[in-house]
Amino acid sequence: MPQDTDPAIHVTHASLKPDARAWFEGLRDSLCSAFEAIEDVFGGDMPAGRFVRSPWQRPTEDGAPGGGGVISLMHGRVFEKVGVNVSTVWGEFSPDFRAQIPGAAEDPRFWASGISVVAHMASPRVPAAHFNTRMLVTTKGWFGGGGDLTPMRLDAPEAVADAASFHAGLQAACDKHDPEYYPKFKAWCDRYFFLSHRNEPRGAGGIFYDHLESDAGAGFAFTQDVGRAFEAAYPAIVRRRMREPWTQADRDHQLIRRGRYVEFNLIHDRGTLFGLKTGGNVEAILMSLPPEARWP
Amino acid sequence: MPQDTDPAIHVTHASLKPDARAWFEGLRDSLCSAFEAIEDVFGGDMPAGRFVRSPWQRPTEDGAPGGGGVISLMHGRVFEKVGVNVSTVWGEFSPDFRAQIPGAAEDPRFWASGISVVAHMASPRVPAAHFNTRMLVTTKGWFGGGGDLTPMRLDAPEAVADAASFHAGLQAACDKHDPEYYPKFKAWCDRYFFLSHRNEPRGAGGIFYDHLESDAGAGFAFTQDVGRAFEAAYPAIVRRRMREPWTQADRDHQLIRRGRYVEFNLIHDRGTLFGLKTGGNVEAILMSLPPEARWP
Repeated sequence: MPQDTDPAIHVTHASLKPDARAWFEGLRDSLCSAFEAIEDVFGGDMPAGRFVRSPWQRPTEDGAPGGGGVISLMHGRVFEKVGVNVSTVWGEFSPDFRAQIPGAAEDPRFWASGISVVAHMASPRVPAAHFNTRMLVTTKGWFGGGGDLTPMRLDAPEAVADAASFHAGLQAACDKHDPEYYPKFKAWCDRYFFLSHRNEPRGAGGIFYDHLESDAGAGFAFTQDVGRAFEAAYPAIVRRRMREPWTQADRDHQLIRRGRYVEFNLIHDRGTLFGLKTGGNVEAILMSLPPEARWP
Repeated sequence: MPQDTDPAIHVTHASLKPDARAWFEGLRDSLCSAFEAIEDVFGGDMPAGRFVRSPWQRPTEDGAPGGGGVISLMHGRVFEKVGVNVSTVWGEFSPDFRAQIPGAAEDPRFWASGISVVAHMASPRVPAAHFNTRMLVTTKGWFGGGGDLTPMRLDAPEAVADAASFHAGLQAACDKHDPEYYPKFKAWCDRYFFLSHRNEPRGAGGIFYDHLESDAGAGFAFTQDVGRAFEAAYPAIVRRRMREPWTQADRDHQLIRRGRYVEFNLIHDRGTLFGLKTGGNVEAILMSLPPEARWP
């Protein structure tokens, strides 16, 4: 935890709204550029993918402004489908949800801003990835998010190496802030991204944190470092693996693993289900689903 | 409702266990034969599909027998993937579920037998279909089930005609038993097979009924007639449509509609979620998922 002498302390989450939004949107720009640069460098006959941005508005019952977001979606030659969403929304939680949200029982108003990334890759040798971070403000305020890697064959040597580099980057970001963060958030991730109905993990894990109620400035600084760690780790993995040869059997297996990814997101993922039940933007929420999946 | 002079009245559900199980298994045999006959008559270069049967046992905590089932799965040239599952299981509902199940609060023991069919078709011109019927026995007993059709383009003339013939068959089965059944069970189906997160129906509907607590003999007779109606209606639709030409655009659209089918089954379908949460057989439950689906 930061000390009382830390200059970041005593910053409230509410005062960070403009900076948090700007950070998430800037990270979106930076990640999209990094992914498009990979498309460019790959070469080949297919054209390099480019992100297409689709803004959306959050509908409100009385027609008042409630914010919205932008879906950035790319179908490329390396990234078969990758979405980078940002949103900044505000309003009131419905009575059903107030009790579940910290600080919303007394006052249902909320403000939320965040970024969400899901990459499904053309090559079965390149792991899929998920990353998101967000700031929530009710009568309380907190940051949450994380990132995790989904290699198609968890035990393959290249997948073990990729997971190790991905985890190392996230650990460095965590350790910079609190030595307890990485073990705690890694275990949280492993618990969260688990298909209990199949008794198997979704992938190789990463970190997951939520309701981080440390000082707002410290939480923001940590969340920024998590974003930087993802941006450093994942594109490097993609570049390392994208030219490796693969077989039709690898592709068939990838499509089955993607089916498991769908199962997790639609059966277990609280973020997905919460978003769909609270009238969130369906296209933005289900951007996470793979371009193609199989259940043979 | 049957009159008190009906010979079927005063039969209890428990006494019907052997006959109900035999009916569901016999219907399985009959449907599998009907589907294989369609594979045979279709011709072409691909081999005709044949069902492969996989039996499974229901695990119990103390290792005592708890029943099981048989998955019959076919990958053919007309039926891209079709599953016909039967199961007969018994045991005790966990404390979490007793309050939700009629008659289980007093005594958690249950017995259940049923059949479940889901057909995903190679041709986008042939509608997908779902059918299931079951008998449940707790301290109460009841039948439930239904069937519904999922054409890929709901408003296309051929889809409207197919839905009309499918609905007519089910209506005839209903009307034979109670004039109130069809309108009630059709509306129930429309309410149930609805993707609220997208505000769209899963398909063209059919009938859905549950907790049918009429006299056991009458409920069984009705459930048999529903099975016969499905067997008469759906193979006829398949034969009528399977040779119609289709385009790559039709196939692409089919794969997107199958994605919606996945969304319904994993987000909304109570049977799927109940089965997965109560330790049901995962392969049998998720047999319903399409062989291939897309979220572009």
